[in-house]
Amino acid sequence: MESEKQLRQTAENISKSGASLLRGGLFKMRTDPQSFQGLGERGFEIFKKVSREFGLPIVSEVSDQRHIELMEPLVDMFQVGTRNMYNYALLKELGRTNKPVLLKRGFTALIDEWLLASEYIASAGNERIILCERGIRTFERATRNTLDLSAVAYLKARTHFPVLVDPSHGTGISDLIKPMSLAAAAAGADGLLIEVHPEPARALSDADQALNPSQFDDLMVDLERVLVALGRPLRRPIPQTTTPSNVVVLSHESKSLSH
Amino acid sequence: MESEKQLRQTAENISKSGASLLRGGLFKMRTDPQSFQGLGERGFEIFKKVSREFGLPIVSEVSDQRHIELMEPLVDMFQVGTRNMYNYALLKELGRTNKPVLLKRGFTALIDEWLLASEYIASAGNERIILCERGIRTFERATRNTLDLSAVAYLKARTHFPVLVDPSHGTGISDLIKPMSLAAAAAGADGLLIEVHPEPARALSDADQALNPSQFDDLMVDLERVLVALGRPLRRPIPQTTTPSNVVVLSHESKSLSH
Amino acid sequence: MESEKQLRQTAENISKSGASLLRGGLFKMRTDPQSFQGLGERGFEIFKKVSREFGLPIVSEVSDQRHIELMEPLVDMFQVGTRNMYNYALLKELGRTNKPVLLKRGFTALIDEWLLASEYIASAGNERIILCERGIRTFERATRNTLDLSAVAYLKARTHFPVLVDPSHGTGISDLIKPMSLAAAAAGADGLLIEVHPEPARALSDADQALNPSQFDDLMVDLERVLVALGRPLRRPIPQTTTPSNVVVLSHESKSLSH
Amino acid sequence: MESEKQLRQTAENISKSGASLLRGGLFKMRTDPQSFQGLGERGFEIFKKVSREFGLPIVSEVSDQRHIELMEPLVDMFQVGTRNMYNYALLKELGRTNKPVLLKRGFTALIDEWLLASEYIASAGNERIILCERGIRTFERATRNTLDLSAVAYLKARTHFPVLVDPSHGTGISDLIKPMSLAAAAAGADGLLIEVHPEPARALSDADQALNPSQFDDLMVDLERVLVALGRPLRRPIPQTTTPSNVVVLSHESKSLSH
Repeated sequence: MESEKQLRQTAENISKSGASLLRGGLFKMRTDPQSFQGLGERGFEIFKKVSREFGLPIVSEVSDQRHIELMEPLVDMFQVGTRNMYNYALLKELGRTNKPVLLKRGFTALIDEWLLASEYIASAGNERIILCERGIRTFERATRNTLDLSAVAYLKARTHFPVLVDPSHGTGISDLIKPMSLAAAAAGADGLLIEVHPEPARALSDADQALNPSQFDDLMVDLERVLVALGRPLRRPIPQTTTPSNVVVLSHESKSLSH
Repeated sequence: MESEKQLRQTAENISKSGASLLRGGLFKMRTDPQSFQGLGERGFEIFKKVSREFGLPIVSEVSDQRHIELMEPLVDMFQVGTRNMYNYALLKELGRTNKPVLLKRGFTALIDEWLLASEYIASAGNERIILCERGIRTFERATRNTLDLSAVAYLKARTHFPVLVDPSHGTGISDLIKPMSLAAAAAGADGLLIEVHPEPARALSDADQALNPSQFDDLMVDLERVLVALGRPLRRPIPQTTTPSNVVVLSHESKSLSH
Repeated sequence: MESEKQLRQTAENISKSGASLLRGGLFKMRTDPQSFQGLGERGFEIFKKVSREFGLPIVSEVSDQRHIELMEPLVDMFQVGTRNMYNYALLKELGRTNKPVLLKRGFTALIDEWLLASEYIASAGNERIILCERGIRTFERATRNTLDLSAVAYLKARTHFPVLVDPSHGTGISDLIKPMSLAAAAAGADGLLIEVHPEPARALSDADQALNPSQFDDLMVDLERVLVALGRPLRRPIPQTTTPSNVVVLSHESKSLSH
Repeated sequence: MESEKQLRQTAENISKSGASLLRGGLFKMRTDPQSFQGLGERGFEIFKKVSREFGLPIVSEVSDQRHIELMEPLVDMFQVGTRNMYNYALLKELGRTNKPVLLKRGFTALIDEWLLASEYIASAGNERIILCERGIRTFERATRNTLDLSAVAYLKARTHFPVLVDPSHGTGISDLIKPMSLAAAAAGADGLLIEVHPEPARALSDADQALNPSQFDDLMVDLERVLVALGRPLRRPIPQTTTPSNVVVLSHESKSLSH
């Protein structure tokens, strides 16, 4: 989230295309301490305003357990980023809230470790967990990460948690987002996290992995076709309760997470 | 290939379901020198016979450049296995034949190294190259390999070679074959290499990654639906000329390889 | 740390052999939420007592920023475990203390990301940072991790922070601890973290990677020879400042310490 | 090997410093088909001449089984490069020669697969096998490969084959060669493969990983100290049998040799 104007424009575009959530970094954690760190508490106000205007639930990343209490009344879903999947102190604390938790896979986590991380949340009392595959670190360098869609198929057969896929971070290459989104849906994913920006080239971060609104619309058309072919039509309208973002498209089943 | 009877049964089943090629190891290379090594030259006769009976072209793996001359008149396509992708002496020699070459990705090869390997074949004069993603070696252990479908989307946008996917070796888990086959198709793959065995539990090798004929049929139904939804209907009938297996389903576009 | 008796016995043994620090998990973080979680606050008392008795400074792992204030007066050094290397909220908070911080490499962290993590601590004001290589996650499965000694040589030429090596977690095989300790010293490491347990077979965790006191003594003899040969004799007695420099051997009770 | 003059100069330098073998690529295999491919058969003559002059046995890489017969009378040892470790047709054929075989680890090979590769040679009758760790492919990018010294310690305790280490290819950074050579020796390696070039900056390939003769001398001094400290003094003069044992230093003209 860079500014109110940018957020409203994106929200308007994506809500028309069928997205179900508004996602934005309030306390954004970056690898490089010098880089852009999000808008902080000031951003909450803007976020809440736009969220209500378009009826899009809010999901926001949390990386410090001391922020949970402050954020809980404001967000509709917490997100745990890839770098914090092993942060058990944070996970335990999220297990004490009532909000759904979007748990991204650590980029070097075994599927089993990912499931154990989910247990830290669940065993503290919160079973509203949504898993999100976002690419793992391998020797390959052509793509930013290696998107592990087998993990999706593997988890769908072995857990009852919804599984999302983030092809934007998973590939880091904008022209791979559409084919990998379709592939994720065909592999059984319950939803997608897709970066959308009015003008990707001007995005302050991750410019090369965002779609513009027209590319996003084009993706949604084929996505719907694939889902219909597989007997899993895209769930619209936008769910009142749940999940991910400005930035996020949840397909039909993901709705199961709102229960 | 274990016996004539087993081969004929598989050939009959798969040709009904829409497979386009008959694949079998004549000089099978295994990691463990003590394990089953294929039928050798004796197998050629059986292979040829069954191939003609069902109109299924033959693809067979070559791992020794001294076998090429012997195999060339017998096979319709050569296959280079994952362990030989860096075997440049073999690749150069295959560049001097007129038969298509199915080049499997080395399980630890960068996409760029894979393309360089294809250049060893092409620069010796043979441009009939078919690439096949079969999973890469990563830290993950739940699946045998990590099937890198991003590589498929990446290559489709950057080369004119057909790209196949082998979800059987790529995952090593039979219940992941169907979802990953659908995902591969959605990601843009031109074809699939799928292990089929009349009784997977009795297969001498790779038992846990083969489908039985009924599972294969079921996969083909959904595969066709996804391809139709994407405007790329499955190509039948079986092409007269080209490619992969007992064991292989080439979707429509793969036919482009037969040119 | 399992009990006062076990701690005292280890402390006695290792202080005789030249170890310089007493390490123990007070709030131990484990992957499996069901496994042994350390002694908690109760352990502080025992720890402090034994530490004074043998003049061994205390290092203890911290995984929750809310514990820092409580721990600061009790420990001589904080340790950040491999799973928390990317926990920037924790690192920033440690940057505000005056105690040295032992920063273990994330098992999938690039060297550059490790250095960026150290910047999170340093830029908040605390430059007393000690890096510790503890093995990275690779495809190899014979050893628990792949101990990356090149990282040690690389860092010694590029930073002024001391660099330790943890061959116990790095290999997970007790008979590799001695050769890899000698190798680490030869590669330029400033210290070692070695698991020692009076009876490794009875250790509650990590049994197969601990040395018994006699194996530890044997290691120290050859370690000293190698260091003398390279003109960097082992520093004894125990350094007054807990910041290790030149070959400090941390150890002892290391049994339950690191990750 | 680039020219007779360059070869002689290197041979002279390294034989003074205690190297035991002369290595050079006759049929050099490179990843990029357009790059420098070695001198071919013409090089044999030069090689033989210089080898006799300085009493240094010859080791040369073989990547095509059809070259073995031609090379066998000329070389003292065959080398199998990292890309050919899985080339079982080549390994079997080398099992039928009487010359020692230097078997480099595939850069993505499990230790167990490496041992199985050695069995392909041994089971065909040739047990004169020398293993060489040369770095594995991991996510780390600061070094060209990750030199896996644990594999050395692991193998020394589990096989009777000599184990060498190639820190030049293993790190790809010239200032890491010395520390990693010392570390390899301390970990138990029986020898080293070190790239030496009269003027590294002018080397046609691998310039950034070669030592100049003076750096090589400096390394040898400390290497000898470490070995003496460990009771395993460096073997000079050059061993009569080309099978290295105890710390043999292969080197020289190593510039164009290994992979």
